[in-house]
Amino acid sequence: MAPKKIVLIVCDGLSDRPVKELGMKTPLQAAKKPAMDALARNGISGTMDVIGPGIIPGSDTAHLALFGYDPHKVYSGRGPIEAMGVGIDMRKGDVAFRCNFATVDKSMKVIDRRAGRIRSGTEPLANAISGLKLDGATALFKQGSEHRGALVLRGPGLDHRVTDVDPHRESRILESKPLVPEAEKTAKLLNEYVRRSARILATHPVNLDRVRQGLPPANIVLPRGAGSMNDLEPLSERYGLKCAAVAGVTLVKGICRMVGMEVPDVQGATGGTDTDYVAKAKATLRLVDANDFVFVNIKAGDIAGHDGDFRMKLRIVESIDVMLELILKDLNEDVVVALTCDHSTPVSVKEHSADPVPLAVCGGGARIDGIKEFDEVSAASGALGRIRGMDLLPTLLGIADRATKFGA
Amino acid sequence: MAPKKIVLIVCDGLSDRPVKELGMKTPLQAAKKPAMDALARNGISGTMDVIGPGIIPGSDTAHLALFGYDPHKVYSGRGPIEAMGVGIDMRKGDVAFRCNFATVDKSMKVIDRRAGRIRSGTEPLANAISGLKLDGATALFKQGSEHRGALVLRGPGLDHRVTDVDPHRESRILESKPLVPEAEKTAKLLNEYVRRSARILATHPVNLDRVRQGLPPANIVLPRGAGSMNDLEPLSERYGLKCAAVAGVTLVKGICRMVGMEVPDVQGATGGTDTDYVAKAKATLRLVDANDFVFVNIKAGDIAGHDGDFRMKLRIVESIDVMLELILKDLNEDVVVALTCDHSTPVSVKEHSADPVPLAVCGGGARIDGIKEFDEVSAASGALGRIRGMDLLPTLLGIADRATKFGA
Repeated sequence: MAPKKIVLIVCDGLSDRPVKELGMKTPLQAAKKPAMDALARNGISGTMDVIGPGIIPGSDTAHLALFGYDPHKVYSGRGPIEAMGVGIDMRKGDVAFRCNFATVDKSMKVIDRRAGRIRSGTEPLANAISGLKLDGATALFKQGSEHRGALVLRGPGLDHRVTDVDPHRESRILESKPLVPEAEKTAKLLNEYVRRSARILATHPVNLDRVRQGLPPANIVLPRGAGSMNDLEPLSERYGLKCAAVAGVTLVKGICRMVGMEVPDVQGATGGTDTDYVAKAKATLRLVDANDFVFVNIKAGDIAGHDGDFRMKLRIVESIDVMLELILKDLNEDVVVALTCDHSTPVSVKEHSADPVPLAVCGGGARIDGIKEFDEVSAASGALGRIRGMDLLPTLLGIADRATKFGA
Repeated sequence: MAPKKIVLIVCDGLSDRPVKELGMKTPLQAAKKPAMDALARNGISGTMDVIGPGIIPGSDTAHLALFGYDPHKVYSGRGPIEAMGVGIDMRKGDVAFRCNFATVDKSMKVIDRRAGRIRSGTEPLANAISGLKLDGATALFKQGSEHRGALVLRGPGLDHRVTDVDPHRESRILESKPLVPEAEKTAKLLNEYVRRSARILATHPVNLDRVRQGLPPANIVLPRGAGSMNDLEPLSERYGLKCAAVAGVTLVKGICRMVGMEVPDVQGATGGTDTDYVAKAKATLRLVDANDFVFVNIKAGDIAGHDGDFRMKLRIVESIDVMLELILKDLNEDVVVALTCDHSTPVSVKEHSADPVPLAVCGGGARIDGIKEFDEVSAASGALGRIRGMDLLPTLLGIADRATKFGA
């Protein structure tokens, strides 16, 4: 049997709990979503504990699990993922941090953790503080969206077990401290970097301009979430998959790059609720031609969940359904298409929850189990039963005739 | 989301197999149980392998698993649980034994393993043989119900890997032997204790009195089931749960105390088929006010199973249902209520069996899956799917918004 292509569509945080205003239905149960239901009807359903029962997944750990990696083994912090997300090509041994551009006063007290939610001008600022040679390491910095950025320290003998410089509130910036003796050098270099970059930022034209306009200057970077780059065997080597991703959010892009996916920029794919669903569908179809495995993340459902807005979530279900319809109608039945979520973000909780997520798979060798709808409860009666996130990719490889044999 | 309270109700051994006389229904399928069914209807169901598929749980290992501990790692024998159950406050390094008060003749041959099922007078006997100083350890003894008791050896360098003194039949008492060289001291001390305590018991007024009445004297204790106290991280530290239990049986009380639960004595909660269900319901409701997690065990179903009495089991289902109704009607919908069993004790087997048990959870963030009845078969179609006992508490913590996040 010829190996088949796989499309995995992850609706970030779309899975939910019963909503009183919807007559104790979940948004997925209440919404009109003919394409999602068609996928379920033509395939096999189940539910999934993305990490494990009773464990609330972060978006980072969840995606690692969905790509078949054990997050308990490969996840050391969010820094490396953000760094990969903004496009720094990380290497083994690097230590990375998420950063905010922020505003400090002369006593180094943070007076705005987001530098007035600065939206433009961070690229020249980032360029000015990237490439600094420290005592035994190089610091690479790149801006992300809005006030965000990522810092990578590269050099011998670094260790990610250091505390944050970011005070996480409006108070004096913190000295990074080593959590283990091996991380002493890293903490020292990090503190040195923050001081030296602050001197450069203080007199940078972008900031002088902001001060003239009465805006808070982006005169410091606040590193947090240190992590080291673990040696992730890319999906291409692990499973022989040529793979690509359609994703708008930096974090998700970062994970995709970490596991060796190509992540082209898609015009209009914002990672917000205003994302261009048609553009995402078109990008997906384009990538299917040249790849074995195409991953699609749609962030909007998670945002509606965090906002506690069930009406917005209903609308997003329906928008994703339109996107899915465009994808399904142009794919032949040989392509294995899986639809699921990375975690639940119930509107009643406004945060991720540990509730399992629905899963439906059609195409390729997928069985047809008689489940007719795609939602948290219908999926639970499906023939896939209840699986763990780490088992998803192997399951899809099986259905796509890409699994390997053990024994004779 | 504010964390919610959890009530876990375990119907000991209530789960069963098809019964011929009930038209191949199980007692749970045949009984009238409107409260149990309401719980299922308003929540989510599933089945549970308390330890694992094809493993017959003991009540001790089962409860450890239900509280989230891996019994394969933390269980070393029943002694410590019985000791905690009778109220000896065990410490790390202690070695404990279950004991019977028994009758021996002059040649140390056991002629009655239960000393004529002695029912009273064991407290002064226990006091007389508790606190003995041995060569390098202290022996603590406390009576349990009827002929039962528990022995704890406390001192440096003890090891539980020793054989029983109890011959488990009417023959000469056994010398305890070390199973590993490290346990040599413990075996020696145990044998010393049995001899010395026998001398004290022989002339104790309670026994002289029994002999005068023609009753077999309780002139020896027969230790068995050696176990050491493992370092169990209590639920309060592990999950931040303030917790309490309503339980009548010594064994279950012991496990509850081991994991850090408060276990108040409930008047009328006998651990028998005559238990006061209303008193148990009231105690539960009282404890819910002051705790995050309240555990309730009802032993009666297991007794009916061991007796092979399906009519008694039907009556017990209905009695538990009355208790459940009292509990449910006074709890608000925020409280997560779970109903399950620690194992099956089919009336056709008269022993524990490896059959999975039904599980239903309502309240808090529980999804509603359309299952309308609480029994072994209906529950298996529920959206919880099939889980393991060790996953129960994490699952309940998730539904109660008490789970922890992994990642960002």
